[in-house]
Amino acid sequence: MDRVDGRKQGQIRPVRMTPNYNKYAEGSVLIEVGDTRVICTATVEERVPPFLKGLGKGWVTAEYSMLPRATGSRTIREAARGKLGGRTMEIQRLIGRALRSVVNLEALGERSLTMDCDVIQADGGTRTASITGAYVAMIFALNRLVEQGMLEKIPVSDFIAATSVGIVKGRPVIDLCYAEDSVAEVDMNVVMTGTGRFVEIQGTGEEATFSREEMNQLLDLAAAGIEELNKVQRQVLGDIAAKIG
Amino acid sequence: MDRVDGRKQGQIRPVRMTPNYNKYAEGSVLIEVGDTRVICTATVEERVPPFLKGLGKGWVTAEYSMLPRATGSRTIREAARGKLGGRTMEIQRLIGRALRSVVNLEALGERSLTMDCDVIQADGGTRTASITGAYVAMIFALNRLVEQGMLEKIPVSDFIAATSVGIVKGRPVIDLCYAEDSVAEVDMNVVMTGTGRFVEIQGTGEEATFSREEMNQLLDLAAAGIEELNKVQRQVLGDIAAKIG
Amino acid sequence: MDRVDGRKQGQIRPVRMTPNYNKYAEGSVLIEVGDTRVICTATVEERVPPFLKGLGKGWVTAEYSMLPRATGSRTIREAARGKLGGRTMEIQRLIGRALRSVVNLEALGERSLTMDCDVIQADGGTRTASITGAYVAMIFALNRLVEQGMLEKIPVSDFIAATSVGIVKGRPVIDLCYAEDSVAEVDMNVVMTGTGRFVEIQGTGEEATFSREEMNQLLDLAAAGIEELNKVQRQVLGDIAAKIG
Amino acid sequence: MDRVDGRKQGQIRPVRMTPNYNKYAEGSVLIEVGDTRVICTATVEERVPPFLKGLGKGWVTAEYSMLPRATGSRTIREAARGKLGGRTMEIQRLIGRALRSVVNLEALGERSLTMDCDVIQADGGTRTASITGAYVAMIFALNRLVEQGMLEKIPVSDFIAATSVGIVKGRPVIDLCYAEDSVAEVDMNVVMTGTGRFVEIQGTGEEATFSREEMNQLLDLAAAGIEELNKVQRQVLGDIAAKIG
Amino acid sequence: MDRVDGRKQGQIRPVRMTPNYNKYAEGSVLIEVGDTRVICTATVEERVPPFLKGLGKGWVTAEYSMLPRATGSRTIREAARGKLGGRTMEIQRLIGRALRSVVNLEALGERSLTMDCDVIQADGGTRTASITGAYVAMIFALNRLVEQGMLEKIPVSDFIAATSVGIVKGRPVIDLCYAEDSVAEVDMNVVMTGTGRFVEIQGTGEEATFSREEMNQLLDLAAAGIEELNKVQRQVLGDIAAKIG
Amino acid sequence: MDRVDGRKQGQIRPVRMTPNYNKYAEGSVLIEVGDTRVICTATVEERVPPFLKGLGKGWVTAEYSMLPRATGSRTIREAARGKLGGRTMEIQRLIGRALRSVVNLEALGERSLTMDCDVIQADGGTRTASITGAYVAMIFALNRLVEQGMLEKIPVSDFIAATSVGIVKGRPVIDLCYAEDSVAEVDMNVVMTGTGRFVEIQGTGEEATFSREEMNQLLDLAAAGIEELNKVQRQVLGDIAAKIG
Repeated sequence: MDRVDGRKQGQIRPVRMTPNYNKYAEGSVLIEVGDTRVICTATVEERVPPFLKGLGKGWVTAEYSMLPRATGSRTIREAARGKLGGRTMEIQRLIGRALRSVVNLEALGERSLTMDCDVIQADGGTRTASITGAYVAMIFALNRLVEQGMLEKIPVSDFIAATSVGIVKGRPVIDLCYAEDSVAEVDMNVVMTGTGRFVEIQGTGEEATFSREEMNQLLDLAAAGIEELNKVQRQVLGDIAAKIG
Repeated sequence: MDRVDGRKQGQIRPVRMTPNYNKYAEGSVLIEVGDTRVICTATVEERVPPFLKGLGKGWVTAEYSMLPRATGSRTIREAARGKLGGRTMEIQRLIGRALRSVVNLEALGERSLTMDCDVIQADGGTRTASITGAYVAMIFALNRLVEQGMLEKIPVSDFIAATSVGIVKGRPVIDLCYAEDSVAEVDMNVVMTGTGRFVEIQGTGEEATFSREEMNQLLDLAAAGIEELNKVQRQVLGDIAAKIG
Repeated sequence: MDRVDGRKQGQIRPVRMTPNYNKYAEGSVLIEVGDTRVICTATVEERVPPFLKGLGKGWVTAEYSMLPRATGSRTIREAARGKLGGRTMEIQRLIGRALRSVVNLEALGERSLTMDCDVIQADGGTRTASITGAYVAMIFALNRLVEQGMLEKIPVSDFIAATSVGIVKGRPVIDLCYAEDSVAEVDMNVVMTGTGRFVEIQGTGEEATFSREEMNQLLDLAAAGIEELNKVQRQVLGDIAAKIG
Repeated sequence: MDRVDGRKQGQIRPVRMTPNYNKYAEGSVLIEVGDTRVICTATVEERVPPFLKGLGKGWVTAEYSMLPRATGSRTIREAARGKLGGRTMEIQRLIGRALRSVVNLEALGERSLTMDCDVIQADGGTRTASITGAYVAMIFALNRLVEQGMLEKIPVSDFIAATSVGIVKGRPVIDLCYAEDSVAEVDMNVVMTGTGRFVEIQGTGEEATFSREEMNQLLDLAAAGIEELNKVQRQVLGDIAAKIG
Repeated sequence: MDRVDGRKQGQIRPVRMTPNYNKYAEGSVLIEVGDTRVICTATVEERVPPFLKGLGKGWVTAEYSMLPRATGSRTIREAARGKLGGRTMEIQRLIGRALRSVVNLEALGERSLTMDCDVIQADGGTRTASITGAYVAMIFALNRLVEQGMLEKIPVSDFIAATSVGIVKGRPVIDLCYAEDSVAEVDMNVVMTGTGRFVEIQGTGEEATFSREEMNQLLDLAAAGIEELNKVQRQVLGDIAAKIG
Repeated sequence: MDRVDGRKQGQIRPVRMTPNYNKYAEGSVLIEVGDTRVICTATVEERVPPFLKGLGKGWVTAEYSMLPRATGSRTIREAARGKLGGRTMEIQRLIGRALRSVVNLEALGERSLTMDCDVIQADGGTRTASITGAYVAMIFALNRLVEQGMLEKIPVSDFIAATSVGIVKGRPVIDLCYAEDSVAEVDMNVVMTGTGRFVEIQGTGEEATFSREEMNQLLDLAAAGIEELNKVQRQVLGDIAAKIG
């Protein structure tokens, strides 16, 4: 019994990353996971938010947005509505938190990294693709600071990547495309490090519930998939990958 | 090695619920979990949001807010800032999703329940207390619809309650008070049914990560605590408890 | 001819104040006037608004809000609508102005008091109950500053309390409950000091007018009622009452 | 002892009204009270706000605004700040309420009058000048409806005008200019009918209080001044004045 | 073949300017072009926007607004809607840019001029009338700075005035009134200096296009009309006119 | 004397268009003009804005936005600031107006086209690239409606393309890159049809002015460049190009 797009239960979609996609950003990557496409850019600024001023620490934050026609039917721009939606805020808080879990903010110094994740086309898994891509863009930007002599080394302790898992028609699967996501009984986003530790687990049964056993199956799938994503990240980073941790 | 307030590792704080705290609402409860106090009210309206119009289904949604001085230092009102913060939106989406997981929306019919969770005093665990209390207020309101002959039976399949677990100074504990929460390495909110199934798991390591084993310990603590919360809910509901499921 | 709830023309509803209702605020009280319930908290901050910076004067301001289900039918949160309504602004300006009339702002020094009045349940007279309760919360907070040695004495010259009066079915009455308020021809809010001087009079005939004689009757009722409110305030304040003026 | 501009205690400033100041509005007047200048326009629309739909009643509402340079130093536009201030809302609610007190809304039928009061230059008393001027603009608009055969008669029972009174350096005076208003101990706005009944009294002691006797003196001054304003209104209205009441 | 109001093809409407229309502003004028009436005020402030701080340069900016009943049917206030419309922003950017083109910002020093253009009555050409009037108000304000010894000379190199031209029923005409503007195939706003140079040209064919030859005809009309406007400006400025350039 | 990037005075940058860049939109193109990159998508909806309801006419509108890191330094998202800037509104009004000038809205029927122009990377000329690209995306979408039998023919009378011209260091040039644009004395955006008629001219001298002769030189450059852009449009459209007009 294959999935809607012919994939196996534990098979992630093809992942492609185009580094330095943007000529201005300090780090950038276009990540494509199947038909999901996200431009991730890293901006370095020599200042921190007010609550960190004078503490000698840096900050990493993220913003997330979808182009109006990233989706099957056009969605109204949040700028036009005059406010960010709850889903957007939830996602950008998640991305920032995930990245910060492996960054040594003291070693970063009083500077901030803003990761912009702009979804050009959405086919499920945009938040996890954003994390996986933003991680790479962030490393590019930090490596540049090292090369410019502003940092001694990349202040990052581990890799970070993310994927979605879920229960579709009673069966646990990984990396749901939109057609699967829209009918899933359980939806779970998992962020893990390169050494297999959890950074974030968000599992939710919309109008449904799930057992401890099902949860364990989902986490097994996620762990295997994230290992594969780490490999793609290492390839794109090339020599820089060795400087992490 | 006891906790900051003398509790054992797996011990939840005293829980108290005052039913019918509000004379206007169709259902209401004041829930106190330690020093955390939340007023939960249920409002029944004979209409549904536009996206459900004409589908013969109902809706359950939630709103969450903190009084400015619910916290140690005063926080600015979201009404004064002119917009809801990301944290607020995340929490009210969580409460609504959790409650909907056990409600038969078709059986509810074209009406909506709005659960208002207003935090009068916050000492950690406000979102999980809101879920536990809002569940009871919702049942009161639904029971009233049954008594008025508008529903045949309470269209709810199971109990729902929630608690927080986390790792504090390397040790998994349940129901973190603010003093613990502010120094926790890992923070996890767990929503479960009366029959021990998961509704929602949100685990996050802010500037930290956690292992699969640690996660299992946290879920064990949560499961035991939520069973106790279910007992308190049953007591407050009295005879009505038997009409659920 | 008795009133809708059996009261006499000049009889105010039972008044109860629970001091220190909030564990964080510098001063707090839960005031209940009949079924109207308002949580009043005082927050002390060691800074003043920009327009007072460097002038050696303090400031007292107030915010007012109603929980969505404080009323018979649910009202939409101002935070959700993204702005404060005109009624809210009018009321919070009134509360602040009333309190400031008896505070020696120079003696207060460069600090500000923010009084939050959150209506938990509304049955008429929420703005006047807010003033009466906020006054007490403010005195608690100022007394604490005296005890901490930050002020020499409580910089307040007199008591302040407020009530509503109005003409209902042609007859002047005091302390209108919602059922009376909604049919009143004339509605007047009166704020007075402990020595019987006026701080604020706001009389309005919605789709009606009133004579000078009627106004005099209303003010007589108000003066008597406010004297009773002063007594309750003195009881709650206990020994602190003697330090005022 | 004369006042800052040489007036006697009970003397109002010169009042001038230019009728039909605007070529589009159904009724309009430029009112000048001393150096205070307000353009008042009446707009008639054949629809009512949602809460009145189908009730066979009309509505009268008002909006108030000041040009940025109506005042000594430039004030930021409310449109630029993105919201109406509390003072603006308070004033426009007052104007609407005052006018409605003499309009027979049933006789008006399902149509609405919107009174726009735009302050071109402000020298104290802008809200009371707005009421006095808006009343005249409203009568012009209603008379036009009579002439067009849409109303049988002007559905207004009485005249309405307003003035400010206050205590300046211990002495009650009428119609305060800005120089007086900014140092007044007590400030009171009074709206009265042509037959001497009260519509609205708003007396306030900013950082001060006032006695019953002082209040009576202020009301005596107001009553006399409003009689004079009625005369000016009658002159401007000419023959139409006889059709009121 | 005459125009709707009897004017010739190249004839502008009667122009009248009332100087010092506002008693507070540093410079002001009421400009009337036919039935279009705009109050222009200049405010001088001894500070510049953040992006110019410390650069020793000044700034000139403009704000534009229409009273709700400036038009045939009432328009909702931008303050009530909570945001500026696109048309308003476009116009105020245009006015500011036009004025800055002839001001020596270095010579102005670190101060800013804010030109407020408030349309009291609109009958076509409100943005060009605003520019023509705001120029005069600006010169008055700058001359006052010269008289106060704060500037050595008026730091303005040339005159600025503006008019509209357009193609109505196939025929190029100048200074379109609203009746013409609403049916015009091509609409062009032209801002020119006293020496006949262009500052701004905005030509647009709403649902239509235009040829190079037509554009040349329109510019010929505009140049002649703007010369006439310059004459009126010189008259109003009197002796001050000689100090420009 | 060559330009900063070696181009000749009348030479436009390399233009590349990738058709069907987005898998969901009814029409889409990625346009690249030098380093300026804009994703243009066309959305067809079977409804029109309220002001056109029931008139049997369609509508074409546009939205424009820049990714935060489209520029050298990061710009704050308009969604985060809660409102669209004046520049954005001006540009999206321009794009919509330009496209509508060649569309037969009656023939389009009661449906609307929304053109989204999202700037991925900005190096000058983003608004003109948006127009040139949006035109092609719009034709793709309209052709699809023809192929689906919903329209008889493409209801467009002519081609539309746009470019910028300007005076840089005293010399008229075409298609300014950011380095030129930021120092230009005069900046002009020109929109023309395939048959050489003007749709829109917006010429502006920021802190400068220009002569009639200079304007003529700029228009000559623009006309030649737009002819070249039309050729690229025709190539991308292939057979569809013949169905226009």
